[in-house]
Order: sequence, then structure tokens, then C-alpha cells
Amino acid sequence: MSLTVVGSIAFDAVRTPFGERERMLGGAAVHFSLGASFFDEIRVVGPVGDDFGEAEYAVLHGRGINTDDIEHVPGGKTFFWSGVYSEDLNSRETLATDLNVFETFEPKLSDASRACDVLFLANIVPDLQIGVREQCEKARFVALDSMDLWINIARESLDRAISMVDCVILNDEELEQLTGKPNALTAAREVLSWGPTAVVAKQGKYGAALITQEGFFALPAFPMEAVVDPTGAGDSFAGGFVGYVAAHPDEEVDHALLCRAMAYGTAIASYNVQEFGTERVARLEPYEVSARVADLQRMTRFDDTPLALRA
Amino acid sequence: MSLTVVGSIAFDAVRTPFGERERMLGGAAVHFSLGASFFDEIRVVGPVGDDFGEAEYAVLHGRGINTDDIEHVPGGKTFFWSGVYSEDLNSRETLATDLNVFETFEPKLSDASRACDVLFLANIVPDLQIGVREQCEKARFVALDSMDLWINIARESLDRAISMVDCVILNDEELEQLTGKPNALTAAREVLSWGPTAVVAKQGKYGAALITQEGFFALPAFPMEAVVDPTGAGDSFAGGFVGYVAAHPDEEVDHALLCRAMAYGTAIASYNVQEFGTERVARLEPYEVSARVADLQRMTRFDDTPLALRA
Repeated sequence: MSLTVVGSIAFDAVRTPFGERERMLGGAAVHFSLGASFFDEIRVVGPVGDDFGEAEYAVLHGRGINTDDIEHVPGGKTFFWSGVYSEDLNSRETLATDLNVFETFEPKLSDASRACDVLFLANIVPDLQIGVREQCEKARFVALDSMDLWINIARESLDRAISMVDCVILNDEELEQLTGKPNALTAAREVLSWGPTAVVAKQGKYGAALITQEGFFALPAFPMEAVVDPTGAGDSFAGGFVGYVAAHPDEEVDHALLCRAMAYGTAIASYNVQEFGTERVARLEPYEVSARVADLQRMTRFDDTPLALRA
Repeated sequence: MSLTVVGSIAFDAVRTPFGERERMLGGAAVHFSLGASFFDEIRVVGPVGDDFGEAEYAVLHGRGINTDDIEHVPGGKTFFWSGVYSEDLNSRETLATDLNVFETFEPKLSDASRACDVLFLANIVPDLQIGVREQCEKARFVALDSMDLWINIARESLDRAISMVDCVILNDEELEQLTGKPNALTAAREVLSWGPTAVVAKQGKYGAALITQEGFFALPAFPMEAVVDPTGAGDSFAGGFVGYVAAHPDEEVDHALLCRAMAYGTAIASYNVQEFGTERVARLEPYEVSARVADLQRMTRFDDTPLALRA
């Protein structure tokens, strides 16, 4: 089986209270791939320019990620994003977004990528998400990310894309904006009525919630003394979450399985933010992922000792 | 055994997107008492004016709360708070705070109130909290709430009060302000170094976290399609949380017990916000509390099926 991801491959420049990097590997498809690489064979589809070289491929190959469908655009430059995080890391200011080769990106999937069992459509133009989704006819589970920009300027296409996937992963504010509902729960239930069977509401430092027809599940973020760089946390989460589904080809993708997937996504995202960019996840070991999932279970479990309450 | 609470008894006027009330029973000690009344005999200590009558006492007596130490100040008026909540209920604007009889409040505890097994110091002047704490020598578990005002203008007294209690219950922002730490986890650990053995970090719609020397625990808020009125949610939570401790006089107050207490606090707070003021909790039934705790357990539990991850 295999998992295909389509999205941005980037260089990021970031400054946080803990330091800065002038040029580090990033992009949604990269963070997703690294996170998902613990679970299945990953094929990453996205464009890069002449500045994307051996060092960057080495990070992906170091985690066994198949890069055959990374499209090198001769004479082009790789997508570049630059931003500064606030002191408490809860907000960030974008200083530059140079789309470069990403501006004219048209995903070209090899037969192998098209034959994927599971597909993740990272945050790109909804029409491209639709095109990719239509090519991957055999995918038994498709998840999608998006952003406020597409809600604002490509609403019809986004609605159509959402109707074609199994799972939508957005943050609380995006869900509320998308649906006009006052909270993430009602927003997620609205999205479920459009076709998907699962919605993940990301809540930043507070964790994430899963809403399906079967129920509601919530998991806090792993508690951290210090978040060094939040860049890519959401995509790392999606990598662990969707990757976990891909690792269970013979199981029905039901609520219980997605709850477990949430734990793996949360665990991997927590490592992502401990260092800049891909630095921590690139050298993450399987036992570290498992240990953090076990920790998360301990940190959220309480006994249900029956208690006679006073009437 | 018994649980004593000292704090405000009030009339509130609130407007939320779901409606308004011009005068409803409120105050930290009232919301706490109602929440805690499912667990132990509650004695409430606080001042009221001539406008506090049979209807208000009836709400408290309806839940078996002992009101002997409610101090009636002849010729006085009960504490009055008025506020308007934002559309998304995440913020509120205070329109009026008339301290009235609360301005000169000096807690007078009967022997029975002083003999309490468990004590909750609701948000009042820290010097009064210290005085009450010193009177309740036998209390085996004492918890305290506070607010930004006291951090700003009565810092030394607040520090001393905190050093005298077992548990501090504050929201994330208050913990960060109190300690100068960038996040609730490091802030809570700092507070633990001052004497308390437990800190609860309240996170509003995202739930609450518990930090002790033994570990970290987090619980989401119960998912609600509609929050009608958040007034008193934090005090209802504290009532369920501290009440649960009071209901277990023969058990050590360890991390595991406080995790279970978090579930009861969360359950009761979730009912509080379903209607205005005390309306919902005043007619809450024990089976409804138990049912919601069981729901919370389902909504946070995931299996830990071992999985071989890819190196």
C-alpha cells in the first residue's frame, strides 16, 4: 500500500523567541511526508526549483520517502515563505510569500502515485485538489487541508473538493468561517453533512478534536515546556493522523481507529515544534513516537470509579 | 465531613447572543456551592443585602446547602455585576460592578464552618483568603481562585495566600501573568515550587489541565452545540472539582484522584453554561452528572494498540 501527498515544498525563513533560520526546508507536503513516513510508503508530489538540491532530498530520503514525483522546474525557484512569530507563539506575521514555481504548479502524478491507497491533499488551490482526487480512483481514504484564502476566493471549488473527500482537517476558526457556525462542533457537524465522514478541528496549543457521525473525541496537545518553532505543526499532525490510517489497510476507518490516529498525529506534531523546521522529525525514532503516544494516553485517562452523588 | 466556601454572593445582569437576564442569582460562592452540593455538606460564607430574599435562599436550600454563615447586612445591597458577552462568547465586557456589601466584607465563620474538612477560597481579596485559611486549621485540602486584579494590586498577599493552600485554580492567562512564564505548563510548575501540590489551568472552551508533581492531565470541555451563558462556569467547575475531593475523606489527594475530580468539575461546568446563571445546575440530577462523566471518558479515551512503526 502507499500514501500519496500533494502540496507545497518550500524554503522557510522564520524568527521565533528561541532563534531564527534564514533558509530551512519546509512546506506542507514535506512536513506531512516526514510525519507520515513512520506508517507507510510515502510518495510526495510537488514542485521545486533549481535551488532545491541534494541536502533537501537527503532529508526526505533519510525517512524513506519516495521523491520520484517531485517536479524539478528548470530555471525556477522553490516556494519561499518568511515569517516572524509573536513572543507567545500564538500568532505570526508573514513577511514574504514568494510562490515561485508553486504559482504555476499542476500536479503530475505517476501511475504509482495515482494508485495510492490513501491520499492527502495539502493546502493548495481547491481546483488542483479536485483534479488530484479524481486521478486517485482507488484511494480508500482521502483527507484535505485548506485555508482562509480559499474560503474567501475559491469557495465553490472548495465546497466541491470537500464533497469528494473522507476527512477535512482545518483549524477551529477556518471551520467557523467555512460554515458560518459559532463554534467548531456545530461547524464540523455541518461539514459532515456535505459528504465527509470525519472532521478534525485543530486548536493549536490546545490540541485537536475529531468529529464523526459516531461521536466526538478530543486530545490535548502534548504539554511542552518550550515550543521552539510551530511551523509545520499542523502538517506534521496530519502526517501522523493520515499515516496511521494508511498503516491499517485492512481495517475499517471508523471512529475508534481515527481516535488512535489522533494520538499519533499529536505525538508527531509535538516533536515537530521542539526544534526548527524539519530538524527534529527528520531524526525522530519510532520508539520516541510510541513513547509519546503512551504518555498522551496516561495524560488523558481517568478512572471511572462509580460515586453515589447527593440528590 | 463538610466543605466550606468563602466568596461572593451576587446578582448578575447578563446579555449573551441567546438572550438576557436583568437580575439573576450569581456570585462565585453560589456557583461553587451548587456544583459542590452533589458531593458533600456545603457551608457557604458570604455577605448579602436586604434584596437577597426567600427565592434566593430557596435555590441554595433546594440543593441542601447550609446558609447559616450567609451574613445579612441590614440596609445593604447585594453585590451586583453586569456584563455583555461577545457574539462568540469568548470575551465579555463588564458594564457595572457594584460591590455594595461585598466592599466591607469580613468573613465570619461559625465553628461548624471552621471545622471543615475541605475549604475553597473563591476569588476575593487575598488578605481575606489568608484570614479564612488560618481559621480552618483542620482542612486537609484547601483550594484557591484569584484574578488579574489581585496579581496587579495585592501581589505580596496573593503570594502568601498561594503558599498556604494545596491547590491553585486559575486560567492560563492568569497563571502566565502571575509567574511571567510564557505558557501554562511552565507557569504551573513555578506555582508548584511555591507550596501548592496541584495547579488547575482553566482554558475556557478548550477545557482544563491539571499539573502536579506527579504529572500532567488535560480534559477538554464537554462539547456543546450552544453555550447559552458562560457566567459561573469556572466556579461550577471548581465546585465539582473540589467537591469530588471532599467526597473522598479517606483517600489521599493524589494525582489520580484529582484527575477524576477534573471530570466531575468539567461535567458540572458544562451543565452550568447550558442555561442562564444557576438555572440549569439548580435542577441538575445526580444521574445527569454521572452520565456526562461517562461521556467525557468515552470522548477522551483511545486504545493503545501496539503498532510497528517504520524506522
